[in-house]
Amino acid sequence: MQKDNLNKVIPKTLPGFMELLPNEQILFNQMMETIKKTYEQYGFLPIDTPIIESSEVLLAKAGGETEKQIYSLNKGDTNLALRFDLTVPLAKYVASYQNGLAFPFRRYQIGKVYRGEKAQRGRFREFYQCDIDIIAENELDIINDAEIPSIIYKTFINLGLDDFTIKVNNRKILNGLFECVVWGETPADKASIMRIVDKIEKIGKEAVKEELQELNLSENSINVILNFMKIQGTVDEKIDILGKLKIENELFLEGLEELKQVVKHIRLFGVPEEYFEVDLTIARGLDYYTGTVYETFLNEYKNIGSICSGGRYNDLAEYYTDAKLPGVGISIGLTRLFFILNDIGLIKSEQKSISKVLVISMVEDLTASIQVANNLREAGINTEIYFDNNKKIKAKFKYADRLNIPYVIAIGEDEIKSGKYTLKNMQAGNQEQLTIQEIINKIS
Amino acid sequence: MQKDNLNKVIPKTLPGFMELLPNEQILFNQMMETIKKTYEQYGFLPIDTPIIESSEVLLAKAGGETEKQIYSLNKGDTNLALRFDLTVPLAKYVASYQNGLAFPFRRYQIGKVYRGEKAQRGRFREFYQCDIDIIAENELDIINDAEIPSIIYKTFINLGLDDFTIKVNNRKILNGLFECVVWGETPADKASIMRIVDKIEKIGKEAVKEELQELNLSENSINVILNFMKIQGTVDEKIDILGKLKIENELFLEGLEELKQVVKHIRLFGVPEEYFEVDLTIARGLDYYTGTVYETFLNEYKNIGSICSGGRYNDLAEYYTDAKLPGVGISIGLTRLFFILNDIGLIKSEQKSISKVLVISMVEDLTASIQVANNLREAGINTEIYFDNNKKIKAKFKYADRLNIPYVIAIGEDEIKSGKYTLKNMQAGNQEQLTIQEIINKIS
Repeated sequence: MQKDNLNKVIPKTLPGFMELLPNEQILFNQMMETIKKTYEQYGFLPIDTPIIESSEVLLAKAGGETEKQIYSLNKGDTNLALRFDLTVPLAKYVASYQNGLAFPFRRYQIGKVYRGEKAQRGRFREFYQCDIDIIAENELDIINDAEIPSIIYKTFINLGLDDFTIKVNNRKILNGLFECVVWGETPADKASIMRIVDKIEKIGKEAVKEELQELNLSENSINVILNFMKIQGTVDEKIDILGKLKIENELFLEGLEELKQVVKHIRLFGVPEEYFEVDLTIARGLDYYTGTVYETFLNEYKNIGSICSGGRYNDLAEYYTDAKLPGVGISIGLTRLFFILNDIGLIKSEQKSISKVLVISMVEDLTASIQVANNLREAGINTEIYFDNNKKIKAKFKYADRLNIPYVIAIGEDEIKSGKYTLKNMQAGNQEQLTIQEIINKIS
Repeated sequence: MQKDNLNKVIPKTLPGFMELLPNEQILFNQMMETIKKTYEQYGFLPIDTPIIESSEVLLAKAGGETEKQIYSLNKGDTNLALRFDLTVPLAKYVASYQNGLAFPFRRYQIGKVYRGEKAQRGRFREFYQCDIDIIAENELDIINDAEIPSIIYKTFINLGLDDFTIKVNNRKILNGLFECVVWGETPADKASIMRIVDKIEKIGKEAVKEELQELNLSENSINVILNFMKIQGTVDEKIDILGKLKIENELFLEGLEELKQVVKHIRLFGVPEEYFEVDLTIARGLDYYTGTVYETFLNEYKNIGSICSGGRYNDLAEYYTDAKLPGVGISIGLTRLFFILNDIGLIKSEQKSISKVLVISMVEDLTASIQVANNLREAGINTEIYFDNNKKIKAKFKYADRLNIPYVIAIGEDEIKSGKYTLKNMQAGNQEQLTIQEIINKIS
């Protein structure tokens, strides 16, 4: 398209794609940095995979909804697509480089993924996922399943949130139960029951009952399942009740034993009692998970759904390799989380700036201004100089104000002669005359 | 594609897409972090724009080679494409949010861009660009053109490089010269001469001469241009010679005056003499630039081309808005730079790890190990615990070794009783018995 003085191209950003002003971007980046730092505190290693993969690799497992949401490209004779999560690329990565990795392989990845969802407020087609996974060869110790909630806890505390609950369950318990109740009836698909039961928080008990009836489960089975979902109590009470149900199903008992181990170690890892609970209704929709599952809710905003979910899976990369690679992991959808926190006012409202100091020269010769800026930067203080000397002094201060820069140093003839510079604290409004070293000491 | 136990999908990454093992990824991320921190030191603000834009927006200006390299998508009834640089998205961004921004707008952006180039060693189809630009409304002070090289200098010094040269020129000087020499002759397009002259380092003087002859320039004009390109000397000598050429062309004289200002202030900004030079052959291929231009070379590896380029442009967003938005900026192609530095051995070879400590439990009860790890993390020390108690102690130490984790703490019955833990320094090979506090003091 050629330029036309009358018909400019409208500079629009696509719907479903988040774009922030710098002051919001600073807050967004800070959240991302906090998540990254927390993941690193627990020894997770960074990886970065392409956003474009061959469709064959990306869709080895996918199907149904996922496939419909895929952004695909054509370039040359290869079918290409944009990744829709960070788990499939991880599977490809581990299968590709298994010999180059040390196991258990603890990796984090923070990156953009793409889903052509129906555009609506708070739903994004391009969004950041912040994932951690622990992958083992052949067998992964159950303690890892307990460490994950402690990392979720630490991450959200570090993000400044403190009213949330990490819900833990184990799909073996549910699958074991389903095995029992459908025993002798039409052998209903356990995965179908799981998907229906998973919706109980969203659609309610009655709707779940109706959907289960459609699977041709007996009234009795449905009641057993629904009564199971109603089990109430503290973490220990629930575990106690599960033990007393006398369900002699191997999978159920294995799941219960795992859940006990996980709960015991979640406490050892230091997660306070009020931040986690056992929720027997948590199932996770994905077939993928095989044991422990997690969801995380803001207590005051449960309606927005889980803000951090995940679980244990038997085999990460079965579509690419014969090696058995069990793992456990979680994902934070950062773009949506940022949008929501911003929306409900939970983002810390204090304004952040990149520059700590703006240097303003009142004389044409910039020698002193540059010298001051260089000294501050050497002391690790982010500093910028306002160069445009045609602008009025008021405009320069307004610039500092709009960018929330906390300090302004104004440099004129007198300051240069005396070696003492005027440091203005923009928030307090006061100013004082200080040497460079005094300024550095004050600001650092 | 369905899973098939015999026919797995081959987990391949596309050619032209960089994927690193974690130990390399740590080094890559460290370089990215250094660039980011340096940009922030000078007060640049972060922005993040979508990787997907509408083709109309992305290709408002592009044409020719760029358009051929575009990755395009189809989703619904909109034509979409992947960004091929960070400048077009910046133009869109500034045109969209002009009222929400404070000018001069100093922004940095670090992100992936996509070009369907012919795949070859060291050329990437997905790569990171690290850009800074300073955008003004209506007029941008020339001092900004001098600050940019000082940021290039600081960035590469911070990256651990110290044998490079920032080459500076001003296109007004070249365009002014071309105006003079083609005066009265066939009105050869200045842009065409510029593109030919820009190749002088690559293709040599003779080839440039031939191409200029094809433009029907007179022998005399060609000689003037080629002699101009041969001007030798120090920065000041070159500027001196330019002044004595007595070229009475307005554009030429304006460019010379700007170059003088830029050189004067590059020195004030503290760039040592040996790190920059005036190179009258630097033209930059893109029509886009209108004044100062930059290229940066590793002195020992000039053949790899410029590792950081940019320049001044009259109007950033003319395709989207009537507002006049002059700017100056540079870009570092980080993916290629990392590949090259790795290839020629300039990446600091010391191995980096994420975890500073690996905690190994010699007893089944993990209480003490978890307590130690929690204490270390609270003290800001990245720590992981090796959970799999089925593994032999040797395998656990090997894990620490492969991940370059510098310290291992082994916790057994004796350690728990005495409250003194065995801290092994993996590089030195020695070990000592210390309390938690002593360990923290030692490692921090």
